Amino acid sequence: MSRVSCAACKYQRRKCTSDCVLAPYFPANQPKKFQNAHRLFGVRNIVKILQELKDEDQKSDAMKSIIFESDMRAKFPVYGCVECISYLRQQLQISLQELQDVRSQLEFYRQQHPTATYPNFDR
Amino acid sequence: MSRVSCAACKYQRRKCTSDCVLAPYFPANQPKKFQNAHRLFGVRNIVKILQELKDEDQKSDAMKSIIFESDMRAKFPVYGCVECISYLRQQLQISLQELQDVRSQLEFYRQQHPTATYPNFDR
Repeated sequence: MSRVSCAACKYQRRKCTSDCVLAPYFPANQPKKFQNAHRLFGVRNIVKILQELKDEDQKSDAMKSIIFESDMRAKFPVYGCVECISYLRQQLQISLQELQDVRSQLEFYRQQHPTATYPNFDR
Repeated sequence: MSRVSCAACKYQRRKCTSDCVLAPYFPANQPKKFQNAHRLFGVRNIVKILQELKDEDQKSDAMKSIIFESDMRAKFPVYGCVECISYLRQQLQISLQELQDVRSQLEFYRQQHPTATYPNFDR
């Protein structure tokens, strides 16, 4: 039975053998995933990252992060996944500021009504 | 006067000319910065990213994000900058949970003491 070429081998027009290291991460039906990764890192660098990791779970996680970075770079050509980091930093800052404000309000109520207790209050 | 080779040209042992596109981003005194970027993306891909952007500010921002991604991958070989994204997501989740808890406490105090008002309270 002939083996279906993975997206990496298909893109490079080569035979996909059973020992293809990219096949587990780049299925034939998701060509864009490979194209983005190849465009940003190049096949050689992706294979190098895989070869330097021994553990299968680590290889899988590394490929997920590589694919994520490539997809983000395709979407945001200037910032890549730093776009995502900036967004999260901003959301965290907003949330921490809000937390500070709400704590100040809570502190005010506590001082005004020192005998009141909050149910299940353990902080 | 001879021109000091940038870290990219120095690493590749070639003459750094005045039109070197990498020189502005990889100064001679920060060789590790270039080595990490070259290791992850390769010079050709870095130059390609630069060439596809017209605006100088965008080029500079793109190189900052490329250098950040490379440094993170050197530090975290499995997750790269996804390590940073996971950390920020976790912090944001903790902060939002905390915010929800503190708001519940505040709501309790308000219901107990509906006439109390918080100074400069505009939420």
